[in-house]
Amino acid sequence: MIDSVVIVSGGMDSVTLLHYLVKRERLNPAVITFVYGQKHAREIACARTHASLLNCAVHLVLDLSLLRPLFTSSALVSADIPVPTIEEVTGDPQPVTYVPNRNMIFLALAAAYAESHGATAVYYGAQRHDLYGYWDTPPQFLDSLNRVYQLNRKTPVQIHAPFVNYSKADILRLGLELGVDYSQTWSCYQGQEVACGRCPTCAERLQAFAEVGLPDPLPYVTGA
Amino acid sequence: MIDSVVIVSGGMDSVTLLHYLVKRERLNPAVITFVYGQKHAREIACARTHASLLNCAVHLVLDLSLLRPLFTSSALVSADIPVPTIEEVTGDPQPVTYVPNRNMIFLALAAAYAESHGATAVYYGAQRHDLYGYWDTPPQFLDSLNRVYQLNRKTPVQIHAPFVNYSKADILRLGLELGVDYSQTWSCYQGQEVACGRCPTCAERLQAFAEVGLPDPLPYVTGA
Repeated sequence: MIDSVVIVSGGMDSVTLLHYLVKRERLNPAVITFVYGQKHAREIACARTHASLLNCAVHLVLDLSLLRPLFTSSALVSADIPVPTIEEVTGDPQPVTYVPNRNMIFLALAAAYAESHGATAVYYGAQRHDLYGYWDTPPQFLDSLNRVYQLNRKTPVQIHAPFVNYSKADILRLGLELGVDYSQTWSCYQGQEVACGRCPTCAERLQAFAEVGLPDPLPYVTGA
Repeated sequence: MIDSVVIVSGGMDSVTLLHYLVKRERLNPAVITFVYGQKHAREIACARTHASLLNCAVHLVLDLSLLRPLFTSSALVSADIPVPTIEEVTGDPQPVTYVPNRNMIFLALAAAYAESHGATAVYYGAQRHDLYGYWDTPPQFLDSLNRVYQLNRKTPVQIHAPFVNYSKADILRLGLELGVDYSQTWSCYQGQEVACGRCPTCAERLQAFAEVGLPDPLPYVTGA
């Protein structure tokens, strides 16, 4: 019997969140992974690994590729737009890696699943963004969205982002305490065999490992 | 070039809305129709008819059937739950025809399309519900949701529901003024050749025609 729903991409933040919910909060979350034409399909295998490792009762992998006509303007789903380097996105409030309304959609779908199963807690791995910021991750977004869901008097879903004020290094420290194997997580936006080391999430990830003084167990392009 | 997005199911309300936006508001909306395992697939053909009749530049028919695992508890998408009669749902704030979080999902998807194309206006056909009410249709829902979207400083989508204070009879009167052919709309929740006359939307529709003093051009089960 699930008591919550968590969105897990297979990246560092959401995998750490899953471990945190199961090991610290003693929850039985249903895990949802969305496939939406992103270039880093390897993340999905990582999500499967952890859902299985933690004996999650439900892991839904939902293919949203058919929704691709909705998203024409993001580098994460369009083959025509190259993924930028971290230097190119810093300071842009809506970089080319932004997927229009993605978080609203993912959370709405997760909330539907929760509501269908009588659960009211939905978790996702939004973190504090130091290098750039999307409009649909900070605490104000969460608060406003929860005010909408509170209008549902029968099954008022609440969206939780326990890491919303954590830096990526904070998340990493917590995950290391929880015994998360970060060689089984994937962050790079490029779809290569080894991580590029230069895209925005690679840069954030490498910085987090540098901050905690450990090497990232993932292989990177030589010289990155 | 589209300037807005409108969700059209093929029922009376959304078809009237489409005519209103094109003929009165002089908009060029992209039309989106969601297919989500509902039993009344005939509605979709009606949506196509009107989008074509009004020369809409874009009509996306998006099949969300793959999302069916998310919605286990609604009579509109589950073959195991019978569609109730109007008597069975009156007064229930969340009748079995309620699809968990459907409006939030549809609006989030429509907003993504709008944002991807630089449009900020999204329209849907929510009406005043006299006989029963869902939490995700009244003005408070719309206001709260728009407060979330206003956080997007670059392309702040606004959700509009011009008929939110209209009764179904009000919508019908407007549609008749606009020359809408209501034989090319479909409301019945049952998937039969003729409308059942007893499900909640049939009941609402028949009442609207009775109020304006006209016969409904659709065929109904004899004796309904």
